[in-house]
Amino acid sequence: MDMETVNSMGFGEFVDVFGNVIEKCPLVAAAVWSQRPFFGSEDLEKHFFDFIDALSRSGQEGILRCHPDLAGRDLQQGTLTAESLREQSQAGFTSLDADDRLRLQQLNAQYRERFGFPFVLAVRLSDRAAVSQELARRLRCQPESELRTALGEVKKICHLRLADLLGAGPARVELLRDWGSERQQDAPRRGLGAAHPSLEVGSGLEGQSSHPHKGSGELKQSHEQ
Amino acid sequence: MDMETVNSMGFGEFVDVFGNVIEKCPLVAAAVWSQRPFFGSEDLEKHFFDFIDALSRSGQEGILRCHPDLAGRDLQQGTLTAESLREQSQAGFTSLDADDRLRLQQLNAQYRERFGFPFVLAVRLSDRAAVSQELARRLRCQPESELRTALGEVKKICHLRLADLLGAGPARVELLRDWGSERQQDAPRRGLGAAHPSLEVGSGLEGQSSHPHKGSGELKQSHEQ
Repeated sequence: MDMETVNSMGFGEFVDVFGNVIEKCPLVAAAVWSQRPFFGSEDLEKHFFDFIDALSRSGQEGILRCHPDLAGRDLQQGTLTAESLREQSQAGFTSLDADDRLRLQQLNAQYRERFGFPFVLAVRLSDRAAVSQELARRLRCQPESELRTALGEVKKICHLRLADLLGAGPARVELLRDWGSERQQDAPRRGLGAAHPSLEVGSGLEGQSSHPHKGSGELKQSHEQ
Repeated sequence: MDMETVNSMGFGEFVDVFGNVIEKCPLVAAAVWSQRPFFGSEDLEKHFFDFIDALSRSGQEGILRCHPDLAGRDLQQGTLTAESLREQSQAGFTSLDADDRLRLQQLNAQYRERFGFPFVLAVRLSDRAAVSQELARRLRCQPESELRTALGEVKKICHLRLADLLGAGPARVELLRDWGSERQQDAPRRGLGAAHPSLEVGSGLEGQSSHPHKGSGELKQSHEQ
């Protein structure tokens, strides 16, 4: 799908197509439509990321809370969105043995209890066997940094879903996979960002250690030149 | 449902129950969960309204764009949410004759073209026969004031859906119907607001004649005493 097609869409069609690039949050696509015309896939993606970054803290937590658990209730009950089902399925979460599933459910519950949102991970970029380990690691993180990490995962998922819809090649996805395997705070941003600015999925969150107070809804203008 | 029950909910259950009080925007309920404990239905409602008021302009337009047309495509295709189907059905939109439906669809299309979001109306508070007239009237409004009017309707719908879920009595709904039949700017706010503060569904929008620029996301603090 080329940008001319995207830019010609009415809001109804746009939300039909892009409404779930942020899981169960069609509001984001519906808001992003206001920003057209888009000058390319990275520009389109940037508007999704900007919307998330501009939300109050509770709004950002809300984005996370719209995500399903990995191998959780929605998968068991068949209520996953099509995108989540495909991702969890391709990553092998539909065929976990009972012990692995139980272990993951216990860790998911601990994570939800500790942070007040579910564990979110771009599973297409992860080795299934490493997921429990990664969940256990993130369980030990501080809430502020974990919120940033989780929103970074939301952005990776968004990037991959947009790439699916726009027909982006697998090369970029491979690069994102490599990048995703690094700890976010250790990633060599500058070099990668120069070649792939849209892959700087954490960049909009820099300087948010003093996070906007609940409901303050402050907008980061840094991307709005 | 009492507030103790509401306050004891985990975010998953809370979003299951309240996720569609703002049409197709579970993100809002998921964000509001951060604000618990709630001290009553009006307090709960206020947090939903505050979230909407704190959104950037494109975010507020996004909320509107998640709403279906009255007697539109979703009704024809059976893809309305349960709440919208009940509301449109009770208001008689499932049994329009062909001429009325065509007239409404034409007006809806003109409205979407003019404002960039669908015509939103709390149909439970309206006389079906008056809807086309009201749509034609609002088509002639200025975009800024129409955005405020439409968000006021979103809040009325939210109020009624919350009342359904929380088991509020019909007396309040009747009062809201009376209020809803007046032009928003002409409503005798003070008297009604004194007895029913949560019914001041437009009050969060006062002073927004100079609306925040797109993306400014300013929070109105007037309810936050």
